[in-house]
Order: sequence, then C-alpha cells, then structure tokens
Amino acid sequence: MIIVMKSDASLKELSEIIKEVKKLGFEVHLSKGKERTIVGVIGNGRQVSPDYFEIFSGVERVVPILKPFKLASREFKPEKSIVRINGVSIGNEEVIIMAGPCAVESREQILETAHAVKEAGAKILRGGAFKPRTSPYSFQGLKEKGLELLLEAKEKTGLSIVSEVMAPEHVPLVGEVADILQIGTRNMQNYALLEAVGKYNKPVLFKRGMMATLEEFLMAAEYILSNGNSKVILCERGIRTFEKYTRNTLDLTTIPLLNQLSHLPVCIDPSHATGMRSLVIPVSKAAIAAGADALIVEVHPCPEKALSDGAQSLNLKEFSRMMEELKPVAEAVKRRI
Amino acid sequence: MIIVMKSDASLKELSEIIKEVKKLGFEVHLSKGKERTIVGVIGNGRQVSPDYFEIFSGVERVVPILKPFKLASREFKPEKSIVRINGVSIGNEEVIIMAGPCAVESREQILETAHAVKEAGAKILRGGAFKPRTSPYSFQGLKEKGLELLLEAKEKTGLSIVSEVMAPEHVPLVGEVADILQIGTRNMQNYALLEAVGKYNKPVLFKRGMMATLEEFLMAAEYILSNGNSKVILCERGIRTFEKYTRNTLDLTTIPLLNQLSHLPVCIDPSHATGMRSLVIPVSKAAIAAGADALIVEVHPCPEKALSDGAQSLNLKEFSRMMEELKPVAEAVKRRI
Amino acid sequence: MIIVMKSDASLKELSEIIKEVKKLGFEVHLSKGKERTIVGVIGNGRQVSPDYFEIFSGVERVVPILKPFKLASREFKPEKSIVRINGVSIGNEEVIIMAGPCAVESREQILETAHAVKEAGAKILRGGAFKPRTSPYSFQGLKEKGLELLLEAKEKTGLSIVSEVMAPEHVPLVGEVADILQIGTRNMQNYALLEAVGKYNKPVLFKRGMMATLEEFLMAAEYILSNGNSKVILCERGIRTFEKYTRNTLDLTTIPLLNQLSHLPVCIDPSHATGMRSLVIPVSKAAIAAGADALIVEVHPCPEKALSDGAQSLNLKEFSRMMEELKPVAEAVKRRI
Amino acid sequence: MIIVMKSDASLKELSEIIKEVKKLGFEVHLSKGKERTIVGVIGNGRQVSPDYFEIFSGVERVVPILKPFKLASREFKPEKSIVRINGVSIGNEEVIIMAGPCAVESREQILETAHAVKEAGAKILRGGAFKPRTSPYSFQGLKEKGLELLLEAKEKTGLSIVSEVMAPEHVPLVGEVADILQIGTRNMQNYALLEAVGKYNKPVLFKRGMMATLEEFLMAAEYILSNGNSKVILCERGIRTFEKYTRNTLDLTTIPLLNQLSHLPVCIDPSHATGMRSLVIPVSKAAIAAGADALIVEVHPCPEKALSDGAQSLNLKEFSRMMEELKPVAEAVKRRI
Repeated sequence: MIIVMKSDASLKELSEIIKEVKKLGFEVHLSKGKERTIVGVIGNGRQVSPDYFEIFSGVERVVPILKPFKLASREFKPEKSIVRINGVSIGNEEVIIMAGPCAVESREQILETAHAVKEAGAKILRGGAFKPRTSPYSFQGLKEKGLELLLEAKEKTGLSIVSEVMAPEHVPLVGEVADILQIGTRNMQNYALLEAVGKYNKPVLFKRGMMATLEEFLMAAEYILSNGNSKVILCERGIRTFEKYTRNTLDLTTIPLLNQLSHLPVCIDPSHATGMRSLVIPVSKAAIAAGADALIVEVHPCPEKALSDGAQSLNLKEFSRMMEELKPVAEAVKRRI
Repeated sequence: MIIVMKSDASLKELSEIIKEVKKLGFEVHLSKGKERTIVGVIGNGRQVSPDYFEIFSGVERVVPILKPFKLASREFKPEKSIVRINGVSIGNEEVIIMAGPCAVESREQILETAHAVKEAGAKILRGGAFKPRTSPYSFQGLKEKGLELLLEAKEKTGLSIVSEVMAPEHVPLVGEVADILQIGTRNMQNYALLEAVGKYNKPVLFKRGMMATLEEFLMAAEYILSNGNSKVILCERGIRTFEKYTRNTLDLTTIPLLNQLSHLPVCIDPSHATGMRSLVIPVSKAAIAAGADALIVEVHPCPEKALSDGAQSLNLKEFSRMMEELKPVAEAVKRRI
Repeated sequence: MIIVMKSDASLKELSEIIKEVKKLGFEVHLSKGKERTIVGVIGNGRQVSPDYFEIFSGVERVVPILKPFKLASREFKPEKSIVRINGVSIGNEEVIIMAGPCAVESREQILETAHAVKEAGAKILRGGAFKPRTSPYSFQGLKEKGLELLLEAKEKTGLSIVSEVMAPEHVPLVGEVADILQIGTRNMQNYALLEAVGKYNKPVLFKRGMMATLEEFLMAAEYILSNGNSKVILCERGIRTFEKYTRNTLDLTTIPLLNQLSHLPVCIDPSHATGMRSLVIPVSKAAIAAGADALIVEVHPCPEKALSDGAQSLNLKEFSRMMEELKPVAEAVKRRI
Repeated sequence: MIIVMKSDASLKELSEIIKEVKKLGFEVHLSKGKERTIVGVIGNGRQVSPDYFEIFSGVERVVPILKPFKLASREFKPEKSIVRINGVSIGNEEVIIMAGPCAVESREQILETAHAVKEAGAKILRGGAFKPRTSPYSFQGLKEKGLELLLEAKEKTGLSIVSEVMAPEHVPLVGEVADILQIGTRNMQNYALLEAVGKYNKPVLFKRGMMATLEEFLMAAEYILSNGNSKVILCERGIRTFEKYTRNTLDLTTIPLLNQLSHLPVCIDPSHATGMRSLVIPVSKAAIAAGADALIVEVHPCPEKALSDGAQSLNLKEFSRMMEELKPVAEAVKRRI
C-alpha cells in the first residue's frame, strides 16, 4: 500500500502517518517527488483497509498495491483448478454444457428436458426448485417437490444436477439432491449464505453479481474458499449497463481475464446475459471461442408455456442444433464438447 | 399490458396470441396501426409476467402498463405513511437524524458517541454489530457483544437503536435490541431475509441495492409489505456508476420521485453515498432541501481509529456543527430538526 | 405510439388529448382497461416525439411502438448491406481485418507495420493522423504529415486506408487519402461532423459512443444515411461500465443484435474494448465466432515505444500469430479470413 | 507516477524499466516490498501517459500520482474564479438563475418568456438556436433566425444570453449574439469545438458529458483553458445510469467535489437531469443547498406546445413559484438569489 500525501501536507502530518504505520508493524519507505511525498507501507497490507489511512490529515489518497483476494488468485495457485462432479471435469479440455429449464415445473417437463439435453450432449441438468423472483407475486418454484423431481431426473438419466440455494438453512436440503449448488447473482454478497456453502462439501456454481466488479466477485469467492470449500466455478451471467435492448450486457472479456487473475474455472450463462432466445446461440459460440470452461443454458420443451424466463429459453430442437454448431468452434480453439 | 406484433406477423400468429390471452382470463382489445398491430390485454396484468408472451412467434415486444408494485404504491395508499419508533415519527414534519459509528467497536466508543449525538439532536443511534464486509479478512463486527453494548447505550441515553441484520436466523436476536432493523444494500434482494423481517413486527430501514432500479427497490419493499410488515423506511445510499472519485453516486432525485411513486418515508445515507467526510455536510443539506424524511450519518469519536469506514465518518464536533447548519435548511423547506 | 392515461385522469383530460392527436393528423384508437385508459395514436409516429404528449395533464407516460430509426433498419432494407472498398467487401463471407498503429508516428513505423500486417493477411491499414486525446498535453497526431505517410504506405503496399476525422472542415483533407473515414467514439453525436461525412462519398467506420444505447447508435447512423451516404460500417469498441480492470466492457452481443436490427455490417475493435494486449486475441476469436464482419486491431512494431495506446497494441509477431489462430474460428462459423 | 512490478518480474526487466525512466529525464526511486517492487518516477509525470510503461514486460500496472488536469485545479489557482457577464457575477455570493425555453420557436414565445423570467428574477436568458437532436427527423432549431430573435429579446429585456454552439465554424456567429457560449453534453470531447471556444473571448457554459468522469470533465475544460479562455462555468446535467424512471441521474455531489478539485464555478441543470417537470423544483432546492453557483432551467410559456423538451419545462407560473421557494434555501446556506 502507498500513501500519497497532499501537496501542502506539513512535516508534522507526515511524521504522524509514519508513526502510525510503524505502530501497526509495517516498515516505512519514504519517497519525495517534485509535487508529492509518498509513504510506502512495506508488509502484508491486506490486513489493513486502505481507508484506515485516508482519514489522517495531510493524506490525499491511499493506493493498494496487492490484490485483495488471495486464495482465488493465480499467484496463490498457478495451475488451473479442475472441479470434478461424478466423472465430469470442469476446467479441463472438454467444455461442459449444463442445460435445463429455469424452474422445475412438472414431472413431465423436467424428465422430457433431461432426456433431450442428455441426448444432445449436455453433461449436467439445471433446474430451479427455489426461485428468486423480482416480484413476490411471481411463481417462486416448486421447492421440496421440485427437488424430488430433480432427483428422479438424475436417477433416470444419470445426469448430475445443478440447482440454486437461496438461504443458509436450505443448504443441506438442496445439497442432498444437487451435485452443484448454485448461488444466484442477487446473493453474490449474501455472506451468511457464502459461509454456509463454504462449509458444505459440494461444488458451487457462483454467479457474478449483476453490478459487481471482478475484484468484488473474486473477493466474494474468497468467502467460500476461506471457509474450506475450494470447488468453486465462477459464472458470468451479464452485468447491468444502460443498454436497454438486452436484459443484461454479457462481459465476455471476463473469460480470458479471470483466467489470468484466478485459477478457478469459468462458466458463461448466455440465457440470462441476453434475455433473448435469438441471441443465445451466437453468444455461446463466442463464449467458447474466448475460452469458457462451461456453459449453462436455459432449455424448455415448450418455452411458450414456461412459468419463468420463457423468452430466453431454447426449445429442445434449438438446443440440439446449438450443440452441433458449438462443436467446430470448440475444436477451432483446441477444446471439445 | 400490450403486446406489439411484428410488422410481418401472420394472421395465424395473431389469432394464437388472442386465444392465449383469452385462455388466461383476460379480455382482448385489438388495435391495428399503419405498421404494427397491438393486442391490448385487459385485466390485472400483474399476475402474468410480460415475458410470458414474448416467446410467442410474431410478437415483437410486450409493454407493461401497470406498475408492478402495489402495496408500496401511492395509488394503493394515497396518504404518506408515518413510521413511529418510541415516540419518534419518521415521515412527519420533523426530519429525523440517525447517527453513530459504522460498527460498534467498544463500550467507550459507543457510549461516548451515543451521548454526543443525542446532545447534538440525533433521535436514533446507529451502530453495526453484524457487519457485511467485502473481504472475509476484514473486521466483521462484535456480533452478540455489540448488541449488548447497543442495549447499554440505549438504556443510558434513551435513544432508539437501528442496527443491521444479515441473516434470517439473526432477526429475533438483533430485533431484541434494535428498534429498527436495517437491511443493507447487498441484501436488497435476499428474499429469505426480506420474508423474515416482513413477518417480524419491527420497523425496517431498507437500503436500496447499489445496482437496483427504483422499480426493483419498490418491488423488493413489496416482499416486506406483503409479508405483513408495513413499517418500511426506504433508504437511498448511493448507486454504482462509472464515476471514480466518490464511492457511489448519490441519487437525490429519488427523494421527490419516491414521494410520487410511494407512500413510504425516505431516508438518505450521505456517508456511504459519498465515502468522503468532506462531502457529507453539503450533501446532507441537499437531501433535506429535496425533502428527505430522515438522514443516517456515520459519526465516530475518533475516525482515525475506526475499524471500518473511517474515511467517511464525521467526528463529534463536525456532527454537532452539521446539526446546526441543517436547521435553517429544514426551515427553508418548512420542516424542522 | 400509445398514450397511457393516469388512473385518476378526468374525461376532460382524455378528450383534450384526443383532440390534440387528431389535430396532428393521426387517428385515435381508444382502449379502456380495468385500471388505465390507453390512447393509441395511429399513423407514422416518428414525426412526433413521445415527450410531446407527456406534458399534457392526465398523461402518465407515452410508449413509442415503432423503432425511431428507419434507413438503418432491417425492415427498411431486409438484405444485408455490403460495403466495398477497392475490391474488398465488408459484410460478405470473408471477415476483413483492419490493422495498424493507433497513431502514425514516423515513416519507418507506418511502412514497417503496413508491410507486416499485409503479409499476415490484413486487408486494410489503420493509422491515426488526427488523434483525439483526453489530455490537451498528449501527442495529438502528425496531422497533414501523417496523411502523407499513410498515402505512401498505401502506394507501397496496395492496402486501403482507414483514418479518423475529427472536424467537419477536415473531411475533404482526410478523405483525399483515406478510403474509409473513421468517426471516433467521442464524436458519435457530433452532428455537424455526421452531416459532413454523410454528404461525402466515402465509406464510414462509425464507432459506437462509449455510453450510447444501440438505439442511439442507430439513430446517429441515421444522420449519415439520411444525408445520402449509405456506406456505413457499425463498430462496437466497448462501452463504459463500473468494471475497472478493463478499459471498457466489450458488448459482443451487439453483433447478432445489430444483425437483427440493421442491415449494416458490423466491425469489432478488440484493442480499445479491452485496453490490454493479453486479451486481444481471445476476444477477437469471440467476435468472429459471434458473427463479426470485420475487426480493427492495433498493431505496432514496438509497442513499448508507441506514443499512444502501447498497452493495447500487438506487436508484429503477435498479430501474425493471431491471424493464424483466427482462421479456424472463422471456418467453424462458415466464414473465412 | 509509480510503476508496480509483477511479483515474478526479473532483475533484467526491472533494470530495463529503470533505464527507460531515466532516459525520459525522470529520477528513479526504488522501493522493495515483501511481495512487489515499486519504481517511483520523480518529476512532472503529466508529460508521459501511464500506459507508456504498462507495455514493458515485468510491469503489473502504473499508478498516476498527480491529477492530470492543471489549469482547472484548485492547486493551480486556490481562490474561486468568478465569471462576469455584463455586471452579473457567477461564482460569488449570489446564485444566478438562467432560464428560458429549450429552443427558440417564435418571436412571441421567446419575448414572452424573456419578460416573465426577468420579472421572476432570472439574470440570464437561455434559448437554443442550433439544437442537437437524437433524431435527424426532429426539429433542429431556427438557426440564424433564432439568433436574431434572441438578440431582440436581449435588447428588449436587458437579459444576457446563453445559447449552444455545435460546430467550430458557428462560434463567431453564435458569439455575436450570445454572452455565454454553451457546449452541450454530446460535445464535451469534441476537441475541435473546445479549441474554437478556447480561442474565442467569451464565457463558456460547459456541460459535463453524460458519460464523463469528473476527471475527464476537468481534462476537457483544460482544453478550453489551455487555449487561452479561462471564463469557464462547469455544468452538471445528469449522467447516464441504469435507472429508467428519470432521463438521467443528477450527480449533485459534484457540487462540493468540484469545489474541492477546481476553482471554476458550478452550475446545475435540473431540467435535463430529471426530464420530469414535477422534479425540477425539489432538485433545484437541493442544488442550491449543496452550494451551486448557478442554475439553468427550462421554462416555456406553454410546455404542452413546446417543439422539444416540453415534459421537463416549467410554465411561467411554476417558474415564478420556484424562484420564491428557492430564496429561503439560498439564505439558509448564506447565499442569495
């Protein structure tokens, strides 16, 4: 961390800062420029927040030098992490496709979808039993009944299950059925929930908050990792901008960037990112070309009848076509599906 | 809700839509323009999500006509709501000032602050016992011990207490001490938590998500209201934009706008909104001039030593000066402090 | 356009609106819902701005039904436009790569780059002679001298030239050398400049404003088209968001979306979009996989010595490698380079 | 400027950087931390862009220490600047109100408005002769005819005139009539235009770009100042965010913040910032309470008939009421109107 003094800071203000830095156990390294004096704080600055020093008189601003996340960083673990789920590996050469409906709605719907997406090449079945909805008056999911249906689909198809968990007390309940626990975008900084899944021994599909910086995203992942669970898959699902045609703005640059910053595998959700069925296939191709390790795609046997997110769901035939079209793109970047 | 058909939609597509609308129990009102045909859906459209129809072939887009929130709206309750806490009324002529440290750190700190802010005219003491922090390695609050200290401050000064609750299972614990339960910006769409405070019989200081539109904010408030708790104070605390000098961008226009859209009282948090001590006083004056019903301000006896948010905390003398300077502004808009 | 009346609008207010709509030459179509009355305005609503009616008492809001752009729309011209420059076609099966330095700096620099990018397969040479810079104290380009050097590079290599024009009076000057006139992101709504290039008979590489919606982008393109110049290439170069690691956030979803909304070809600028050399190649692959018609890439023989944008420029060897890696991706989506 | 080396940077990479820094005429100050080495660049770093060094191998990032603007900064000129226009002073104790229609539409309209706003206490008449419009099909202003009408209004009322200029070649034309040249939000980085008004000897009302950071805003002002014109009034008119109810998000915190960063006076445009007539008065009160030096407000004798921006224009009676209500607010913060 470096502390930039104001141009008119007094010597007394400077010596106060130096005293404080030393008191906290750091070494001081002073650098006097033409217009500013800089106090270098030598030591592991992660233990002190930059704004600790900002309040001292004479200080203009404080610049952190180290990245605030540690366990999630490439520096901490240089080789890429691979998350394994019942024989499926996320983070390896194979690009893993997760597919299924936004919400589990009925036995017929989830079974028909499960069989179809398996047939088309998906390795993991998605489906929400507990649904976060903007309106309290919207369909909130089948809850326990939804979990039972997911279990049946898993037993019938052999697909692994990814499903969202919304509250700490539901972690064991959802975790009994789901092979991957999903944390949704609205809960990216729900720390009680992050701690709960951090202490639970199952892979986590962790969605970026719709207005979170990558640094905040990795700091939030750090909550899960530092509670003991290192099986985290980072998922970009679109961020909020001023653009109105699409539901969100998909930030695909995160794929190579997260790969530089972190060892954790990266998944893309083209359905929530765009909100429009007609954009899902081209955007999925782009995600694979940019190096995504996995995709999570909304598929519904009859999107016109979906109780949620119909507008962004592919039907079974479209999904099957997408899988065919993704294969050559994966091969073009030396991956496979 | 109106459904706009594509310019090249066929008659068959149109009749499919009409059939579907009628099947759901709505009346249809058809309007053929020069370039587009519009299907009006007559009835309470809040029960069906607009994207339900977007997936049908031939549909260009769906435009909701009704606002999606109901219990929070001025149409539902035309007169302004007043939230009463131990003789203090929020939403009335008097502008209520809540003040105190970001986090409870020690007995001396909270008691000294409590006495000083009371002396200066604050009516409610703020102080976090459970703290949401971006980093898992930062100070997370004194938790139960912090609540005990808040209780002591309350007994010694007679001030009411506002304190944050972060998890559903902590609601009774925090609610035993706090007179107002605060929901933080990161938890605005933590629906499990909203339901828990909605079922608990205490006023809620409900902070807007840093990424939330006003419509989403009011929809989230609707979760609390529809669970039975109507004592909700809306709190604007700055939203996230591209600007970098300030921690957030304070959206003061929300004050008159929320007053038009909703009957709930409106509070402003100038400390988190700006992140800079030197901006808190002018921004607080602006908030009162725009019609705020309350302010919540960070005050610390020694901001240089604060374990969190020191950079944006006023010291006791500055807070006292602020209170003096706010009074004439309140009077200029026919309010009082 | 439809006019949504307030729930408490009076019959008199309604009849005032109806009178006004008819006076302007439109037909009226009235639709009474359970909670709102809607006035449909039948006719070409593009001639009247929606806010014309918003001011009338009793009006809640006005919803435009038609898209405000016309000449740029797919409805106006259903087949894709192809922009031809000296035998190169943008918008066809071949993906066109434009490459070169941010700014022309010297004879050696531009000639070396021109030969190298041609060798690697680029079809068009980019290079700024007039440079818009955030600081008045930064290098502003070689101006006329830079144009002369571009002309020499064109004669020596046969590459066509794309170069930025910043002021209406420079259009003929830059247009004498450049085969494509570039309008930069800061000038997307510089209407005097748009009219000037609209009246000039050369292709335009038109960059999206860094905070422009797609609708505004297409409306601004409409200024060029409606002044008589239909040779417009739309260029997405990243938009501004809250994310800090990257210079901008590349909105790749624009590629399929612009292809639905408009007939104009779409180019991507991966260099400005990311600001980081290490991200340019993966992001370029993603752009091609999503269907981009062209890329414009910053290349410099020695990025360490570049007078501007060094951090985002590829060196000659990296560019050559990129071209090799892009080819299989183009083939995977049935295009070629 | 400081250069942060990567954790795995080699000694050779470090010595390359040091050589380069010295070659450019700076001194080097080296600081080795536990995890990173930092190279301090001593001297006036404004002459070299931070990204000049970012490209060198071994460099993680570059942090500028000095603010990039100079002439606009408080450090350069500690006392507040006052811009004087025919006996009216902006930046002094008196808060100056500029008012008038968005566009000059007719002789009756502008004369009636001029007399009325003068009567109510406005000191400067606003009115657009050249209008930037999102659509090429919208009313673009009366142009020269509009300037003639503004001149007549000026002669009849004695009010000074502020009017927008959109192209460098129009500067002398508009400047002949206008006492203050307005640069609109879309032209904040139209550098050809900034240079033209910088060389012209008239005050400039300089609007912040709707997507500009404060740093970019002050850097753009620097273009005007460094061309010789120091009579610049900074104007905040709302920035673009994700919020949809309002046209823009008014960033009122800019008032005290610009006052800390710069000596230039600050004006607020509550009309464009909100886009809604019902929000203009409360927001104007807030602006004055926060310390604004001036307001620019849209007023129209009959907003229902305005050719542009009717929805956000006050009528004459509302403006007169606003002026009455603003006076006590100004007095409450020791200013006057």
